[in-house]
Amino acid sequence: MRFISQTSSDGVTEQLFVLGETPGVLWTPEGAAGARPLILMGHGGGQHKKAPGIVARARRFVTEGGFAVVAVDAPGHGDRPRTEEFARVVAELRAGMVAGGDVAPRLAAMHTFLAGQAVPEWQAVLTAVRELDVVGAGPVGYWGVSMGCGLGLPFVAAEPRVRAAVLGLHGVDGLAEAAARVTVPVRFLLQWDDDQVPRARGLALFDALGSADKTLHANPGKHGEIPEFETGSSLRFFTRHLG
Amino acid sequence: MRFISQTSSDGVTEQLFVLGETPGVLWTPEGAAGARPLILMGHGGGQHKKAPGIVARARRFVTEGGFAVVAVDAPGHGDRPRTEEFARVVAELRAGMVAGGDVAPRLAAMHTFLAGQAVPEWQAVLTAVRELDVVGAGPVGYWGVSMGCGLGLPFVAAEPRVRAAVLGLHGVDGLAEAAARVTVPVRFLLQWDDDQVPRARGLALFDALGSADKTLHANPGKHGEIPEFETGSSLRFFTRHLG
Repeated sequence: MRFISQTSSDGVTEQLFVLGETPGVLWTPEGAAGARPLILMGHGGGQHKKAPGIVARARRFVTEGGFAVVAVDAPGHGDRPRTEEFARVVAELRAGMVAGGDVAPRLAAMHTFLAGQAVPEWQAVLTAVRELDVVGAGPVGYWGVSMGCGLGLPFVAAEPRVRAAVLGLHGVDGLAEAAARVTVPVRFLLQWDDDQVPRARGLALFDALGSADKTLHANPGKHGEIPEFETGSSLRFFTRHLG
Repeated sequence: MRFISQTSSDGVTEQLFVLGETPGVLWTPEGAAGARPLILMGHGGGQHKKAPGIVARARRFVTEGGFAVVAVDAPGHGDRPRTEEFARVVAELRAGMVAGGDVAPRLAAMHTFLAGQAVPEWQAVLTAVRELDVVGAGPVGYWGVSMGCGLGLPFVAAEPRVRAAVLGLHGVDGLAEAAARVTVPVRFLLQWDDDQVPRARGLALFDALGSADKTLHANPGKHGEIPEFETGSSLRFFTRHLG
């Protein structure tokens, strides 16, 4: 794990790093010492580790909850090269969107393709970050919606160190089997008027989750319009389960 | 409005009262002076104004939020006489339950029948309670699930003094028209495995609500099994909208 830069502002220290081929960022409380719970955040499709929504949420989790937060560029996103295979999968997805009809199976195929690479990368990042004194080997949470759910749900299903997860904005397509293996507490965010995920498919993914402790939060609005108060609600959820 | 008794324990003052033919109870912070937001709580079918769930929730709203909370016995419930008409409606409902099949229309009919009496009673209680110095003419919230939603939703739709409502555990039957007239922020509680309200009917009631600001919270479990953490969540919802 190689650190590239460190800056601090408004109580938050931000460190850019690279682990193997994975560029990442770690946010911690400024001047923090000692172990603290860690939240891994997965960004949406076409976004990156420092997308505005990710940064804003990470800063709140750090300043209000005292968490460490880590995000990495998903394969083919942010500072990472786009491989030929990735370009082909994206082109197929775009062609499907232009042609109209049901995009869900193509989106699911792309997420399955990316998850095969992202899950082991995130596991390696988790191992490396937990060796830092300012993080330590405490409980881990995962936050990710849309593609952050499509890649994150298989990660949560596979990773016993994750103890609680906020997921959502994704349909059941391609994820039913992984969802059934998730047993940690889940907060599931659904947009009632989602223009990308049909309502019934989102509800079916919530239904498919194996967790005994899972809560669906549904709000009016389109795919990207999760209300701001859900960030505070996610923070309390993580504090309850990781604190 | 005639007060019958006053007791205080653990920071909460409880006053029993009668307004006309309506027996009620008012909870306020012990030693409180001056105006504060008011929450009206509607109990479930077969319950009463001092059912354990109502009391526990009211005490938290008072001690943690500083609210005044009022509950009354619904028509035919608690300390109130059962009229012949009420007995007939309940007998029809029970016969329907024994016979099996779809109970929802009969339940809706009973709630419509009771709401015709309960709504004006609650409006009169609101007027009387807001004349007390310890309550005042500030914002009002409503909390009620199951029958407390069946009677409460028409109340919220009719009553401009109510600024925010927690509703749920009820299907759309008999309530679609009133739901469309609700425009205040709503928190809607749904039990994913509700044995009394079919899931699709509960989702349809959330869908029918006219409010731009509405959030569905769905949790696993049967009709009466709302998790305890939803009480804290309701408290924060009321604090945000009435505080």
